[in-house]
Amino acid sequence: MSQSSDKPDTPTVAATLDLLRPAVRAMPAYVPGEQIPDLVKLNTNEGAYAPSPRVMQALAAIADESLRLYPDPVSTALRAAAAARFGVPAECIIAGNGSDDCLTMLYRGFLDAGERAACPWPTYGLYDTLATLQGAELVRVPFRVSGRRWQLPAELARVNAKLIVLANPNNPSATLIPVADLRALCDAAAGAVVVVDEAYVDFATAAGIDASMLPYLQQHPNLIVLRTMSKSYSLAGARLGLLFAAAPIVDALNKVKDSYNVNALTQAIGVAALGDRATHEQAVRRTLDERARLERGLAALGVSWPESAANFLLCEIGPRAEAVYQALKQQGLLVRWWRTPELVSKLRISVGKPADNDRLLAALAAALRGA
Amino acid sequence: MSQSSDKPDTPTVAATLDLLRPAVRAMPAYVPGEQIPDLVKLNTNEGAYAPSPRVMQALAAIADESLRLYPDPVSTALRAAAAARFGVPAECIIAGNGSDDCLTMLYRGFLDAGERAACPWPTYGLYDTLATLQGAELVRVPFRVSGRRWQLPAELARVNAKLIVLANPNNPSATLIPVADLRALCDAAAGAVVVVDEAYVDFATAAGIDASMLPYLQQHPNLIVLRTMSKSYSLAGARLGLLFAAAPIVDALNKVKDSYNVNALTQAIGVAALGDRATHEQAVRRTLDERARLERGLAALGVSWPESAANFLLCEIGPRAEAVYQALKQQGLLVRWWRTPELVSKLRISVGKPADNDRLLAALAAALRGA
Repeated sequence: MSQSSDKPDTPTVAATLDLLRPAVRAMPAYVPGEQIPDLVKLNTNEGAYAPSPRVMQALAAIADESLRLYPDPVSTALRAAAAARFGVPAECIIAGNGSDDCLTMLYRGFLDAGERAACPWPTYGLYDTLATLQGAELVRVPFRVSGRRWQLPAELARVNAKLIVLANPNNPSATLIPVADLRALCDAAAGAVVVVDEAYVDFATAAGIDASMLPYLQQHPNLIVLRTMSKSYSLAGARLGLLFAAAPIVDALNKVKDSYNVNALTQAIGVAALGDRATHEQAVRRTLDERARLERGLAALGVSWPESAANFLLCEIGPRAEAVYQALKQQGLLVRWWRTPELVSKLRISVGKPADNDRLLAALAAALRGA
Repeated sequence: MSQSSDKPDTPTVAATLDLLRPAVRAMPAYVPGEQIPDLVKLNTNEGAYAPSPRVMQALAAIADESLRLYPDPVSTALRAAAAARFGVPAECIIAGNGSDDCLTMLYRGFLDAGERAACPWPTYGLYDTLATLQGAELVRVPFRVSGRRWQLPAELARVNAKLIVLANPNNPSATLIPVADLRALCDAAAGAVVVVDEAYVDFATAAGIDASMLPYLQQHPNLIVLRTMSKSYSLAGARLGLLFAAAPIVDALNKVKDSYNVNALTQAIGVAALGDRATHEQAVRRTLDERARLERGLAALGVSWPESAANFLLCEIGPRAEAVYQALKQQGLLVRWWRTPELVSKLRISVGKPADNDRLLAALAAALRGA
């Protein structure tokens, strides 16, 4: 776009950019994730297996009117399906355009400029970005690392945050904080909202662990639980998240929610996927089996990682992590590496399908030898 | 959900609600739009005709991987299709989860708490809601009504707003402000961003009017144009909006945008619909024909309305407007009525399919006689 002259009274692109909020101007440029065709994607923790075949049936049944008319603004059928699936009343549920949308509702609902959120660190970067967008402060409290566990830092309850957000299992460590510790946090942080993002929890509960806070929602009025269908349900492309909270909190957050936030196709798909427990259980079980196999292969290579309760592993590679990341990419395998100091020596590897994991192990062995 | 005791150190739902931002607490409860099965919906201005058959073909071609994997965060193929369709470079385009999502990006990008937005009034209620959510002020400048036209109020450029938002054609009046007036506004409001929401503009351009600001985007660096595929493309259920601005502004707004805001299905559908000009043109032309027929019927009933450049009419009914609205609803016809003083005597009626318009005219005639 061409710019007009520099006369102060004439609009220019530069002058228009100056109108952006300082908080937004100060943010680094957005860099979309790597989109490299034909690479094996083990970098964003999507479910490795296909979604329920009922999802495809639901899509095939979509009629013109589902597209022509506005979607149900409060996703009634979807919330009923989620209520049946998770044992939580529908009036305690909000559906989001991905759980990212649910997180946005929470930050816009609770955090004014200058107020404080907190989370254990390192974790999902969006918790930080959303605080910045609100002009709020995010206090990053380092996890208490104890052997292969990343434990809840007790300070988290004591930093006077209004909003405490944590992923459990955590991303990128895949580590799990026991439910008892989270319940104690809800009690200790009585003046705060505690948001537990259970994006990966199905991989923990399938392993027989009492890992979800959903059964305790009613006992902790300051607790909000998030789920996503992007991971264990293999529906990242459809964007569907769920927020669980006390009904009056749901009512308040509905004021913040975009009116038609979940499109009609995704609502129909979500109902279908939530109704097919067998496919979901099989996908999660297969993923756990593959994770165990991947772990044996990684151990044989001398790689270590925190104990995983999710569908990925945060592998300690050492100072050659970036070189190994690049070597894997050259072999057509995309994993996740961050330049940030606390993660620079590590690679996060999603559990893929068996053939993908075989390729990963072979390429990693070569990269570790050659790097 | 049960509440715990009143001890200050024990979390309660009431205490958690007190943590909401004051701006959110003060908002009235969200009331979802009427969802009444089997009613003829002439209340939300959706396109009356089916979307492109290519949309259904695109849906049928969706494969598991489109659902399993995260969508393209920057909707590359969709933006390329929009660039080809609208003659604007792809780097000047953002895709949104409906144009509501694009509006959210703009308010979150430009408006800090205490700052000022402005729009002609009455108009689309979301312009107000989003200002409230930012803790910002919305200055409502009344349209200058002149006969059957609602004209641009000159004061709009003089209220020191940082963000000026207007729908053109306007909702709910369906009236059109000439492009020359909007271009003068962009020049006069040099210290502001001017957002022109062209949700309904296809119904004006199809009638031969030079109504869109898109051809003038490059000449006005403070201009941002919005389009939606919810109306003339009959894709309200899929949620797809487009934002057009200078490339550096698009770059900045990408920092505010939710990373995966448009799901994979909607991206595919959007590409298909944008590529089918014939279906789109036919739907718009049929809508204009039906609007003319509806107008003749309404005139015969003695009803008046501002000159419409969109797919709806803001009918002046008088003090019995609410009673007529209720009578129509009892006949299975849903139109839009607002209790707000400036609109209380009016009904907004979307142009439907021929049979729907016939039913509407017959029921309205009866209601006007009987009320």
